Amino acid sequence: MDTYRVCLADTVAGGLVHHERFFEIAERSRSATLGRVRLPSDGPRHRGRRADGAGLVLRHGAARFHAPAFTDDLLVLRSEVLKHGPARSWWRTVITRGGTLICTVDVELVCVDIATGQPRLMPPSLADMIGRVARTAALRSPELTAT
Amino acid sequence: MDTYRVCLADTVAGGLVHHERFFEIAERSRSATLGRVRLPSDGPRHRGRRADGAGLVLRHGAARFHAPAFTDDLLVLRSEVLKHGPARSWWRTVITRGGTLICTVDVELVCVDIATGQPRLMPPSLADMIGRVARTAALRSPELTAT
Amino acid sequence: MDTYRVCLADTVAGGLVHHERFFEIAERSRSATLGRVRLPSDGPRHRGRRADGAGLVLRHGAARFHAPAFTDDLLVLRSEVLKHGPARSWWRTVITRGGTLICTVDVELVCVDIATGQPRLMPPSLADMIGRVARTAALRSPELTAT
Amino acid sequence: MDTYRVCLADTVAGGLVHHERFFEIAERSRSATLGRVRLPSDGPRHRGRRADGAGLVLRHGAARFHAPAFTDDLLVLRSEVLKHGPARSWWRTVITRGGTLICTVDVELVCVDIATGQPRLMPPSLADMIGRVARTAALRSPELTAT
Repeated sequence: MDTYRVCLADTVAGGLVHHERFFEIAERSRSATLGRVRLPSDGPRHRGRRADGAGLVLRHGAARFHAPAFTDDLLVLRSEVLKHGPARSWWRTVITRGGTLICTVDVELVCVDIATGQPRLMPPSLADMIGRVARTAALRSPELTAT
Repeated sequence: MDTYRVCLADTVAGGLVHHERFFEIAERSRSATLGRVRLPSDGPRHRGRRADGAGLVLRHGAARFHAPAFTDDLLVLRSEVLKHGPARSWWRTVITRGGTLICTVDVELVCVDIATGQPRLMPPSLADMIGRVARTAALRSPELTAT
Repeated sequence: MDTYRVCLADTVAGGLVHHERFFEIAERSRSATLGRVRLPSDGPRHRGRRADGAGLVLRHGAARFHAPAFTDDLLVLRSEVLKHGPARSWWRTVITRGGTLICTVDVELVCVDIATGQPRLMPPSLADMIGRVARTAALRSPELTAT
Repeated sequence: MDTYRVCLADTVAGGLVHHERFFEIAERSRSATLGRVRLPSDGPRHRGRRADGAGLVLRHGAARFHAPAFTDDLLVLRSEVLKHGPARSWWRTVITRGGTLICTVDVELVCVDIATGQPRLMPPSLADMIGRVARTAALRSPELTAT
């Protein structure tokens, strides 16, 4: 679980957080979630990138907006891996504020070689990290796991 | 049909356009599409807002990413209204580059009172504009209309 | 002092954080700094806005970029009020990473009525908050205060 | 001269365009200005990048905000090179709307090797392009050139 303080730049005319920013906030949550299960054996990173050149990009993303959020709101972010395979993973991020559901973001991520953009299998250390997130979710919040 | 030149700020590490930016680009396309059917009778706007306080916000948004885009790419944007009702409308934006499909963005928009955030029926002039967009789409590109 | 974890959306092609994002990060730091000196007597906020309609907007902003930052970097943010008057304030935000200077952002903020955009004197509670920030800075880091 | 239509995502609570977005709009203007003087001999680009790995990043950026801008505004952008040397260039972008001055953005750009981030001299084709922009500005708008 992570928190995020909404800043003015997240909002648009009318005062509410812009829908596109929830995709950014969800990505921040997925990244923090992966960071928590990273092991030394998952290898070094250089300038924010993996040494093996693998990266995760969206093939599909969908968000449902339940209630608006505003500047200074403290959002609570929780990301789970719903399902995962050798090259793809499916994530859900639930964003709440004081117990009120604000937004859910579902994404399908595919592994690519960042230099060429070509799809590739996940390197074992990355697949392991995603597997660890998936198992944590299964233990903690069964209602969110894939059926 | 509108075009959009990708700028550096649209990209992220790795070089490709960030997925959240496609939601912004799609919104830009919807806005330009509505602008083309705006009539003098649709009423004045002040500081970017309608005088009647009505606005359109996303209830749901989904994007499918088919191929990456990069800085300086010239994207072609085409937005259509798939379906519309008294308070809601469903739009599809198709983003291509030189005939290559890059991304499709589908959104459900609901009409709200911007000051309070409460849902409301669309004012007639806004419903008329969306109806005009829907009829144009039906004439020009039947393959994109709702079934 | 606040921290900020760089996310992928902050970066651009080439991997480094985009210069415009440092203005957003600096605003986040100023907002958090003001939040720490807010008293109950400073009045309620509704949907991220002050009840009296006053807001702070930039008249001038300048940033100097000393070293690049990358995804996952943990940035340390420190904002100070260098000078302040009845309608304006001058702030400096220093952004570092592990003791390395990344960026400094200087801004001049003016108080406006958000509904009309017209300049106005700061309401007393807002002037008091900024005065409290200025005094804190004078105690903690004299090298940053205006001369 | 280029134009830019303000979109909702450019704005923040209160309705006006966020200050950080003017830095993005100015970069878009500089990029379009360079694009107009690009010759076939300036070499191919791949995925938005120069083949020689050179890129321009900000060392310093400053903006002065004269009047607010709002959603749907049509901004007029004009970028000039004020001065240039073997590794650096100084640009000014003037942003207006219907003859009203909205914002001026001044930046100092340095040439770096994008892969390593190290400063380098500009490759001749890039220096030539910037020289062409500088000469155009000197012919058209002497009041903007460096003194």
